[in-house]
Amino acid sequence: MLKTAAYAAPDGQSPLAPWTIERREPRAGEVLIDILYCGVCHSDVHQVRAEWGSSGIFPMVPGHEIVGRVARVGEGVQRFKPGDAVGVGCFVDSCRRCGQCRAGEEQYCTEGMTGTYNSRERDTGAPTYGGYSTRITVHQDYVLRVPESIPLDRAAPLLCAGITTWSPLRRYGVKAGHRVAVVGLGGLGHMAVKLAAAMGAEVTVLSTSESKREAALTLGAQQFAATRDPATFKTLARRFDLIIDTVSAPHDYNAYLGLLKFDGTMVLLGIPDQPVPVAAGPLIMQRRKLAGSLIGGIRETQEMLDFCAEHGIASDIELIDIADINQAYDRMIRGDVRYRFVIDIASLGGAD
Amino acid sequence: MLKTAAYAAPDGQSPLAPWTIERREPRAGEVLIDILYCGVCHSDVHQVRAEWGSSGIFPMVPGHEIVGRVARVGEGVQRFKPGDAVGVGCFVDSCRRCGQCRAGEEQYCTEGMTGTYNSRERDTGAPTYGGYSTRITVHQDYVLRVPESIPLDRAAPLLCAGITTWSPLRRYGVKAGHRVAVVGLGGLGHMAVKLAAAMGAEVTVLSTSESKREAALTLGAQQFAATRDPATFKTLARRFDLIIDTVSAPHDYNAYLGLLKFDGTMVLLGIPDQPVPVAAGPLIMQRRKLAGSLIGGIRETQEMLDFCAEHGIASDIELIDIADINQAYDRMIRGDVRYRFVIDIASLGGAD
Repeated sequence: MLKTAAYAAPDGQSPLAPWTIERREPRAGEVLIDILYCGVCHSDVHQVRAEWGSSGIFPMVPGHEIVGRVARVGEGVQRFKPGDAVGVGCFVDSCRRCGQCRAGEEQYCTEGMTGTYNSRERDTGAPTYGGYSTRITVHQDYVLRVPESIPLDRAAPLLCAGITTWSPLRRYGVKAGHRVAVVGLGGLGHMAVKLAAAMGAEVTVLSTSESKREAALTLGAQQFAATRDPATFKTLARRFDLIIDTVSAPHDYNAYLGLLKFDGTMVLLGIPDQPVPVAAGPLIMQRRKLAGSLIGGIRETQEMLDFCAEHGIASDIELIDIADINQAYDRMIRGDVRYRFVIDIASLGGAD
Repeated sequence: MLKTAAYAAPDGQSPLAPWTIERREPRAGEVLIDILYCGVCHSDVHQVRAEWGSSGIFPMVPGHEIVGRVARVGEGVQRFKPGDAVGVGCFVDSCRRCGQCRAGEEQYCTEGMTGTYNSRERDTGAPTYGGYSTRITVHQDYVLRVPESIPLDRAAPLLCAGITTWSPLRRYGVKAGHRVAVVGLGGLGHMAVKLAAAMGAEVTVLSTSESKREAALTLGAQQFAATRDPATFKTLARRFDLIIDTVSAPHDYNAYLGLLKFDGTMVLLGIPDQPVPVAAGPLIMQRRKLAGSLIGGIRETQEMLDFCAEHGIASDIELIDIADINQAYDRMIRGDVRYRFVIDIASLGGAD
C-alpha cells in the first residue's frame, strides 16, 4: 500500500485537516494516478458538513473533479500509459451489468454508482476517498483521457460541473437556432453558458444579481436578465427551447416554466431543500417538460472533454492551496468565486 | 341562417335549458353536419359553471365530442360528401400559419386555438357554440372522418377523451414491452387503458378505489393497484416507462414519480386547483420527466380514429337524453358513470 497525503473532514462538524490514507498499487485493469488538481464542488461542502442525512462516512476525503497523470498501470491496461493526462469524475465503479451501465449511463446504475468518495468499494466495502489527496487508484474503465490542449488545472471542474451541464445540453439536441437559458451563474452555470454557446445556441443567463451581467456576456451569453425584475418573466415568456436550472436554493419553477416555448424542457440540476409547487397548467397548455439530469456517463464525459479541447473551452477557476480549503468553502457558499475553486495538489506536499 | 335546437347554460349559475341558435349554410370549404351524438366532458361542467375564471361566454352551448353526418358541403369541399360519418373535437379553427399549426399541432396554436364552444370565431368574433345542438358548420380542415365500423355513439368520446390519451401514448412511443400506468379510471383513464393495451403495452391501473379492480382488468389492464394502500408505492417502485395521469384532484406527484423507471415520463392531463409540490431529487436521480399534454392535433386525431377502427376500440358509454343533462353533470362529478355520458341528439328534436 502507498501512504498518501490527504485532507479529510474528521466528522460532520469539524474543518478539513491533514490526514494520511493508503492507496493500493494498481491491480489488473487499474491505473495509479498522481493527482495534480482537484476542483471544489458544492456537493463537497454538503457531504463534509453531513447535510445529506446521516449517511456520511468519516473521516471523509472529498473531491471528485480530479486531474492528474498516470503513474503506473496494472496488468492488461492498454488504454493508458505512465505520463498520460487523465481525469476522474464523480464515480469510480458501478455494476457494469444493468441496462444503464451497458448503455454508458453508469451514473444511473441500478445498484447505485460507487462514488469517488463518501462511498464504499463494491468488492471490499472499504470507504472510497476522493481527490483532496496526492494519488488515487481507479479502474481504467472509469478514467477519462484529458486532452493536453486543455490547461490541466482548468480541466478539473469539467469532470463534474462540465459533464453535468453537457449531458442535458446534448440530450436535448442543442444546436444553432436554439435558445437556451441558464439559471444561476456559478460553477455549473458558467460551464452551461460556455458549452451551449459553443454548440451554437443563443444563450441567456437568468440570475438574481444584475452584477453578473457583464460576466455572463463575457462568458458567451448573448443576453442577461435579472430575475429580481418581474418584467423579465413577461419579456422572455415562451422564448426558450431549453432551460438549464443550476440553482439549488428554493425558487419558483412555474415562473421559469412560463419562459419555455411550446414543447420546451426545463432541466433541474440542483436539489432544493423542499419540494417546489408546480402548476400543471403551464406544462399541459404548451406541452412543456420538467426534467432532471445527474452528471453524465463515462462515454459522454470523454465526448465532452474532446469537445472542450476542440473548442478551446475550460473552466474559469481560482487556484488555491489545500490550506485555504476551509476558507474556500465559506467563500463558495457566499457565491464569492468565479467560478470554481481548484486545489493545487502540489500544496499537499509529496506522498510517502 | 339555420335555426337550430340546442341546450345552453344561460349564465354560470343556472342549469342547462333549451335554447335556439343559428348555424350558417356552409361557405367555401365548410361542412354542415347533422349532429347525432355528443359526449359529455368534465370540462363542460367547469365551463358551464364558470369555474375557469370569469371568461365564460354566456349563453353557452357546450359539447366538443361531436359525431354526426354531413348534411351539405360548401364550394370546393372534396374530402367530404353528404352522408359521411364525421366528427368534431375540441377546436374548430386556428391561425394555420404558426409553427404548431403547420406541424399539425393546432391545439397549441400560438394565437390560441378556436374552441368548439365558449370561444369566438376568428373572423366575425361571434361566439362559438358546441355539440349540445342538432347541427354545426365547421371548416373541413377541422372535421374528422369517423370510420363506419365504430358505433357512432361510442365514437363521440374519442374526439376528446380518446385523443387526449392517444397523443402522449404515441408521443412516448408506447409499444409491446412497455409498462404503462394509468392514474384514474374515468372518461380519460378508460380510453388510456384500451389504447395502451392495443398498442401492446402492459397496463396497470392506479386508482383510489379498490372497487375498480375488476373493471380495469376487463378494459384490458394486466394489473390494478389501489393508491390508498401505501404498499403500492413500494411494490411498484421504478416499474413504469410511462404514467398517464388523468386525475385533476390534488394528489402527490412525487409518490407517482417514484414509480417511474430510469428515464421514464409522467404525463399530466388533469389540472389540479392548486400547484403540487415536486421534489427535484426523484427527477434528477433517475432522469425522470414530468410533462403535460393537451388533447391532440387534427392529423393525429384522424390516426387515432383509424387505429380504433382497426382494433375494434370505442368508448364505454351511457347514452342519455338531453333532458337528463343536468343530472348527468351531478353524477359525473360523483364519478358515477362508466365511463362517459353521450347525449343522443335525437332527443333534442328536429332542427328548424
